Order: sequence, then structure tokens, then C-alpha cells
Amino acid sequence: MSADLRSDSVCLGGSAPGAELPWEVLQTRMTDGLSAGVEVIEVRNGVFSCNVLPTRGMGIWTAHFGETRFGWDSPVKSPVNPAFVNLKSRNGLGWLDGFNELLCRCGLSFNGPPGIDEGNPSPIESDLTLHGKIANLPAHSVEMISNENEIGVRGIVDESTLFGPQLRLESSITSPLGSSEIRVRDVVTNLGSAPTELQLLYHINLGTPILGEGAKFACPASKVIPRDARAAEDASGYLEYLAPTSGYSEQVYFHETLTNSSGESLAMIQNSSGDCGLSLRFNKEQLPCFSQWKCTQALSDGYVTGIEPATNYPNFKSFEREQGRVVKLGAGESYTIDLVLNVLIDQEHVEEARKEIETIQGGNSCEVMLSPQLQYCSSE
Amino acid sequence: MSADLRSDSVCLGGSAPGAELPWEVLQTRMTDGLSAGVEVIEVRNGVFSCNVLPTRGMGIWTAHFGETRFGWDSPVKSPVNPAFVNLKSRNGLGWLDGFNELLCRCGLSFNGPPGIDEGNPSPIESDLTLHGKIANLPAHSVEMISNENEIGVRGIVDESTLFGPQLRLESSITSPLGSSEIRVRDVVTNLGSAPTELQLLYHINLGTPILGEGAKFACPASKVIPRDARAAEDASGYLEYLAPTSGYSEQVYFHETLTNSSGESLAMIQNSSGDCGLSLRFNKEQLPCFSQWKCTQALSDGYVTGIEPATNYPNFKSFEREQGRVVKLGAGESYTIDLVLNVLIDQEHVEEARKEIETIQGGNSCEVMLSPQLQYCSSE
Amino acid sequence: MSADLRSDSVCLGGSAPGAELPWEVLQTRMTDGLSAGVEVIEVRNGVFSCNVLPTRGMGIWTAHFGETRFGWDSPVKSPVNPAFVNLKSRNGLGWLDGFNELLCRCGLSFNGPPGIDEGNPSPIESDLTLHGKIANLPAHSVEMISNENEIGVRGIVDESTLFGPQLRLESSITSPLGSSEIRVRDVVTNLGSAPTELQLLYHINLGTPILGEGAKFACPASKVIPRDARAAEDASGYLEYLAPTSGYSEQVYFHETLTNSSGESLAMIQNSSGDCGLSLRFNKEQLPCFSQWKCTQALSDGYVTGIEPATNYPNFKSFEREQGRVVKLGAGESYTIDLVLNVLIDQEHVEEARKEIETIQGGNSCEVMLSPQLQYCSSE
Repeated sequence: MSADLRSDSVCLGGSAPGAELPWEVLQTRMTDGLSAGVEVIEVRNGVFSCNVLPTRGMGIWTAHFGETRFGWDSPVKSPVNPAFVNLKSRNGLGWLDGFNELLCRCGLSFNGPPGIDEGNPSPIESDLTLHGKIANLPAHSVEMISNENEIGVRGIVDESTLFGPQLRLESSITSPLGSSEIRVRDVVTNLGSAPTELQLLYHINLGTPILGEGAKFACPASKVIPRDARAAEDASGYLEYLAPTSGYSEQVYFHETLTNSSGESLAMIQNSSGDCGLSLRFNKEQLPCFSQWKCTQALSDGYVTGIEPATNYPNFKSFEREQGRVVKLGAGESYTIDLVLNVLIDQEHVEEARKEIETIQGGNSCEVMLSPQLQYCSSE
Repeated sequence: MSADLRSDSVCLGGSAPGAELPWEVLQTRMTDGLSAGVEVIEVRNGVFSCNVLPTRGMGIWTAHFGETRFGWDSPVKSPVNPAFVNLKSRNGLGWLDGFNELLCRCGLSFNGPPGIDEGNPSPIESDLTLHGKIANLPAHSVEMISNENEIGVRGIVDESTLFGPQLRLESSITSPLGSSEIRVRDVVTNLGSAPTELQLLYHINLGTPILGEGAKFACPASKVIPRDARAAEDASGYLEYLAPTSGYSEQVYFHETLTNSSGESLAMIQNSSGDCGLSLRFNKEQLPCFSQWKCTQALSDGYVTGIEPATNYPNFKSFEREQGRVVKLGAGESYTIDLVLNVLIDQEHVEEARKEIETIQGGNSCEVMLSPQLQYCSSE
Repeated sequence: MSADLRSDSVCLGGSAPGAELPWEVLQTRMTDGLSAGVEVIEVRNGVFSCNVLPTRGMGIWTAHFGETRFGWDSPVKSPVNPAFVNLKSRNGLGWLDGFNELLCRCGLSFNGPPGIDEGNPSPIESDLTLHGKIANLPAHSVEMISNENEIGVRGIVDESTLFGPQLRLESSITSPLGSSEIRVRDVVTNLGSAPTELQLLYHINLGTPILGEGAKFACPASKVIPRDARAAEDASGYLEYLAPTSGYSEQVYFHETLTNSSGESLAMIQNSSGDCGLSLRFNKEQLPCFSQWKCTQALSDGYVTGIEPATNYPNFKSFEREQGRVVKLGAGESYTIDLVLNVLIDQEHVEEARKEIETIQGGNSCEVMLSPQLQYCSSE
């Protein structure tokens, strides 16, 4: 990262007791090409680090454990300043011109495919573009966090307009000192005087070196549903990943996740040898819908899988509304989301996560549907 | 303002004879969130000040007299860099994503609602978005003004394209030393070789503390016309404002203003106790059409009223053209507009303005129409 | 240029053997109005210089030989930061809001007029805006070049998206020491795993003082075709230019160019007195299609002519595809383009270029068509 960041950085730093390496929270700003002006907060927790992008709605670009990168290689090479992203371009798919994060939020007023939402009479709200605005809105009031327990960053992103939704995201992204863990706490508040709709999906994406032939997905579930005919082709093989495959078209599976007694669920991507992975802890009450995105296309095209806990499935908003899966936030109401991402850096940690997933699954069967299902899939 | 402005500011300063506080013209640039890169010129005239936004087409964000703020609380919290405003989004209503000024120009080639202007055969000119481009075009050649009489700022905003309109706005915004007055002189010039159309509306907006239950509007007029059925509901009460009212829908009234012998008219918003207000002096020959925007919705949604002298009423451009209310500027021709905003900070000044308004009204009756009228309202 | 460039510039410099003036490569960034943030690389080769705009896709703003400017006066006065250009505005003609360069690339995935390309089933690729994205994409990895032979700049521009084209332009723009020559070498590479389409046109534009009444175009050709009925009106006079003419509508001629034995062709614009001009050397295998843009409208509207070697004629993409004139780049394949612009600063140099053009023409006739032709013109 050094080459494309300017020197006028701000830095906090210190040492965690017992940690070999010191910690640091480093604020810099990129200057090059489409990244010009993008603020990066590097949270360096000893050998573990992650890069937060306030300029891109508090997304997380990458994480690293030593030399191992957690993220993916998008055709979009570097974080893109939203000033250069036109969400209306490409028939409403312009969002793809800026998509390359490890964690990218889709929302807040809407997510899913573009189109005119006939279910919303306001022209201010009905003009939907792919995956909403939040990833292309810069955060304000960004503050670095460091206390005796954790380091990180917080920031506020406003998705607000006159006569329309006023959704405020307050996000804090922290790492407990000495850990290899990212904790995301997002609070979305309706600042308006009337109820408004909320859609929020966490697009959490991994490519190489975790993803590879024989890499595996795991998540406790009672039901797995292929999104469309294309996903149905390989429904029974949803747990395992292909090598980079030229001409592969994306396959998406919807999961009815199971939880422990606290309402928590755990998903994991592990590499084929089972000694490296990423786990994601989330709360099903907060994020009832879970999508698995298999996109094992050629390396150069963006070899990637996404695990996507969300308030809804990424169908067109009007379909999700019909299914009762669009959150309605009252005036002044907040919606809180907690996520924990854990970098699993050896067999022991991968096994530990697998066992927890198996424990949650317990004696419950998992029904793998072989075709799209009516209530889940707008393609049906 | 101090927190979100960077330190490399430029400052002129001095003392006015007899003034208690010194004057200052301060140039800074915001760095936070959607405001990143927005230039602010703070004109501090003793206890009175105003903030001009060259980056937003020389708009005026706020004015202050001591602790009293003149402006409003939009859901859009802070000045937005036009790089983050997509005028085509929200079905052509994307302009609303950046609207929060005390004074915001709507124009120059067009204003009013979005749509395709069938009356203009050029595709370069017919694609209208809400209230035009000028408020989202950064000024160049910005200069701070200070002489023995006044302080302020001037700048140039070009709304130009190849094969299309070339309208140049040269704006100077000054405050006479020791006054609580803002003088706007705008000169719009057609730099092209052929005649072109001009539409220009000054959206001058006030919220609390001036606006409140029982706050009053005053302006000499011969006729007041409700814009649509919604405005007609309360036509007879157009002079007075409601408290913040949840669920209130905007009401707009068109005024045929009266002038003194010099062609000047005066409008005023005053608070309910009559000891604070804002007056606006304008020239009817320059700005023949006047709209009053009542938008006394909930505080959190943007409790506001607008007084809007303009070359036209804010109907769709083709309707205004049919009514003969679109200015045609010849090659090289200029159109000059003079406005004076006065902050009225005690009962005496409010009364003085009221008396001048009554004097202009004189023996002339003011006909308040109870329904929209054909030549004024495209809804009829 | 001095006034609108910030002071934190980076500079390389030295002296060429035998040159009177030293050379310099100067990197600055503009700060004013729509130019805020635009990087300029000034390549000063003694008395000759040119200004490259990395922020605008490595376009060339202007060149100068002493006091003589090579470029044109667009209604768009200054280089525009792409953050302020909305390609979707003006019914897809928003590109015109940023167009004022001496050399501006149109491409890479498409060029020509806006519209929906029915020939491309992907919504990510079918939404065409005028002349494509490349001129409004900032370059990264910009490096100043200086060695014993030449000075200049190189940069990389990525026109990439997920699930869409990944076209990378690597451009180097150099000037041999002591010369008045600009050498452009562009290499466009398909970084994706599947073949993709490439359209690339070099819009090279000149106004005063070269262009004027009686200025002349020259290029060896076997056939010249008026693009449409408007161009057909004056087909026989295509070689000579009018004085600035109010109300003039653009005329475009397509040329089947002839080449020397190395496949090179040479085009020239010269002034009426024949003592000043610009020549353009290009390779017909690389750029088989050549358009001449006559736009001798009023000075204030943009009095200009363009010479435009390209992979295609600037018709709508689907028409060019039907005619077999859209390049298909295989996975990993590159397409190289070499251009040489020569500033001709006296009669001798103009004559030399003219003789070379005549030599290439040799005994070959040039057929000037008096009406548009089927395979060339979508208007037919």
C-alpha cells in the first residue's frame, strides 16, 4: 500500500501486553487514478491487520494475517472514489465499477437488482440501482479507536435526502488487541419523522488463497435453495468450490440458517487443505436471510465467493416486500447489526469453527432443494 | 465549522471604523464525508457573518447574527461536493441530495421539475433534471473582496458545453462594512453565438429559529395564486406558518408582486414575536415571478419556508415557455440580478421592513385566488 | 497555466545538447472550479511543449511552439475533472461537458453516439454514452520519462468492471529531445479471460491560429465519403476550411487513406498562408478508419476541425459491428497504436509534409463521393 498513499498520514500506536508486534491505527489517503481521495484506515493489530475505507461507506478493503491476504482480486484493482462511480451507468449496474472489497454493504434504502420499484409511489425512492448507495457514500466524523481492549475506527454514513429516506449508519469496526478478529457493529437509524424501509446486505468476499479447488463452505442450515435454474444445475454440490473455471456463470444459494441458543449463527469458508479460512459470526434475528455467492470464474475475471448475511434476499425490492422481508424502521428507530469476522490461520482454528457449526446443526436435517422455491426466488 | 475545515486557510482581516468586532474574509476547504473538497468563504462582518460556497455554484450556506442562525436544517446535513451529486438519480430528482443552503440558485439553462423538454429539439438541451445544474457546478476565479466600503467574495460559474448553452454566471456577494446585509449581484452572460434560454430562480430558505408557529410572510402583491389543489386547501392562510407538522405536504403560492417607483419589491419572513426576521429586496423587472414555498413538515424532515424570486415560476420548462416566461438571451447579452438580504435582529428593524412593504402595497388590493389559475399553474 | 496550478509541483529538468532552451517535465495539479484535482504533466522540450492530462485518460490538452498554441477554444474552457462529468446526462451526450483537448481518445469499449446496443446482450455493456468512458477515467501509475533521447510521461488507464470488459490502456507520450514532435504509443490489453470488443478513435482537434479561412486539410486517400446529407452539401470542398461561420453545422467526411510501403499514412492541417500546421503520422493497419470533422462554427461556439484516425468510423456501435469494423481482442491480447504529431512551424516543414502526402498519393486517384455510401454511413 505504501506507493499509492500520501505521506501526510495520522497514526496512533502502542504495544499490547504479550504481543510480539506493536499495534497501530494509521490514517492515509490514496492519490492515484480512480483511488484519488480515498481515505484508508489501516488497523494493524500485530501480525493481523485490516484496511477500512471510510470513503466507501466504511467498507473493509482487505485483511491480512502475516503474508496471507483475505480479500479477492476484482477486475477493479483498487478502491474507487465514489466521485468516479455513476450508479446509473451500465443500465443501473454502475455499482460494479467500484466493487472490490472484502466487506461491502448493500443498502440502505434498497439493494438487489436495478429497476423501477412500482411498489413505492415516490419518484425519489423508486429509481433503484444495483445494491444501493451506501458503498458509494463517504463517511464523516471518522475517528480512530484505541483503548486498553481494542483498536479500530468508527464513522458515520448518511444516506439522506430531502423528501426521502434519512438513514444514518454509525459503524464501528474494531479488533481486540492481540486477536485476529474484526468486530463490526452497525447501527442504522431512521432520522426522519415517518417510517422508512431498510434493506441491508453484507457482501463478504474471498478469493485466493483461501478460495481454490476443493475449498469448502460451511454453515448450519435447515434448508438450502438455489436462486435460479443456473444455481439449480449444481445444487447438491453447493458446499464445495471449483478451481477457477473459464466461462463459469455465478451461482447463488439461499440458506435458512440455524442458530445457537443465543440466536447466533456461524458461517465459514476454508481452503482445501483445511488449514486456513475465514469465519463469520452473525445474529439471525438481525440478519435473517443468508446468501452464498459462488463465482468461481477465471482468475482474471474475479475468482470469488461471497457470504452474505442480510435483512433480505438480494431479489428485486418489490419481490422482497411482497414476501415480508423488507424492514420497516419507525421514526427515530434504530436497527443494530453485529458481525464478527475471524481469520482462521491454522488447522486447529478451522476445526474449532467447523465443530461449532456442527454443534449448531446438531440433529437438524438440512434440506437441499433442487430447484428454486416460490417464496425465495423471484425467478420462479 | 471549525472541526471539519482544514487548516490551510487564507484570511483577510481588518477593523471597520466604529465597529466593535473586526471583519474577516476567511477561505477554507471542508474535508469530511460528502463535504470533502467544498470551499467555504466565511465573510465575517463583525457580529454578522455569512458562508459562501464557491464549490456549490456560489450558493450561500448560512448567515449568522451573533448566535442566531439564518438557514435551515435539511436532512442533508452539510454542504455536498457536486462530485457526489448525481442529478440523474432518483428519476431526475438527485438535486435533492445536495440541497441545504440559505440561498441556492436554480438554473441557468432550466429549472423546475425533471423531464424531457419536447419544446427543445436538441438532445443536448432537452434532458431536464430538477432545478438545473448551476448549484452543482464549482466556481472558478474566486476572489475575496475587501475595500473601504464592503467585504465579500466574487466567483465565476460556467454552465457550458459544446453544441449547447454557454451561460456564464459572474456573482459577487458582499456585505457593507458594519452592516448585517448581504448584497448579491449576479450577471449571467450568453457566451455563445446564438440566442439561448435562461431560467433562474433564487431558492432562499429559512427554518428555525425564525420559522416557527405563527411566523409570518409579507410581500406587496396584487394577486396570490395557489400552485395546485394542495396549496388551494389553505390559500387564505398563506401569510402565516404552522408549527412543525408531521405529514405536512408542501404548499406553493405564486405572487404577482408590487414594487415601488424604482421597480423594487421587498419580501420578509418574520418570527412569531416580531423581533427577528429576514428581508429580501429584489427588482421585479429582473425577477418578475415570485414563489412562496411553505414546507412546515416535521423538524427532522426539514422544517422550512422558501421565498423564491425568479425569471419564471417553477413549473416544467415547456409550460413556462408557452406562457412567455422563459428569458431569451441574445449572443453576448447579459442579464443582471440584484438582491439584498437583510437580517432583521430586533422589533424596530422588523417593523421598518413591514412599513415599507405596506407603503408599496398602498391602496392596491391583493386578490387571493382560491384555486390554481390557468396561466400560472401547469396543474390546471 | 501558472495561476490555476498549485505550487507543490514535481519537476525533472536538464539541457539537451545543442538546444538553446533547457527541457523540463513538470507535474502539477489544478485547483480551480471544474478543473480541481486535474493532474497536468507539462513536457517542455525547449521552445516546444505539450500538456498531458493523466486525470482525463492521458489526453493531451494543448501543445505550444513558442507563442503558437496548438489546440482549440472549446466552450468548455479548462480541463474538467471526470468527477464533474456525468456521461449519462444530456441524453447520453454528457461527454461534451468535458471536451476541449488537442488529443482526446474515444473508447475503449465503445465510441460513437449514445444508445442501447441491441447487439450486445449484456446490460453491463449495452448502455452506450457518447464516445465512451476512457477520456473520463483518471490514469494511475503515472511516471515522468526522461532519458538521453526523449522526455515525456507514461500512465495506465483501466476501463474495467466486474462481469464486463477489462480494457487496460498503457500510454506513453514522449518528445525526442530538441524536437517539436509528440510520439504517442498506446497499448490496449484485454485483461479478461474472454474476448472483448475494442473501439478506439483519436479525436485530434485544432482551432485558431492554424485553422482559419483557407486553411487546408491533406491526406492521401483513395476515397472520400460524406457522412450524411449535411456533409454531402459541400463534399467537393472537403479539403478547405471556412472562416468562423455563425450557424454552421458540423460536416464529417470518411477517408479511405493510402499508405507508404510501411503501412504509414500522413494527414496534415495547415494554415492558409502555408507556414504553420500540424501533421499526424499513423499506421493504417492499426487505425484503418479515418474521419475528418469540419466544425467551422462561430469562434465563441468552438471553431475547430478534428482529424480522427480510428479502429472504426464513429457510427453507432451496432452498425460498425455489422460492417466488421469492431476489433475483437482475445483474452490477454494487446492492440498497439503509434501516432506521431509534428508541429510544423514554417513553410519548409509544411511543404515537406505536403510532398510526403503527395508521394504516398502517387498516381492513385481519389474518388470523392457526392453522397453517403451504404457500408460507411449509418445514415444511409
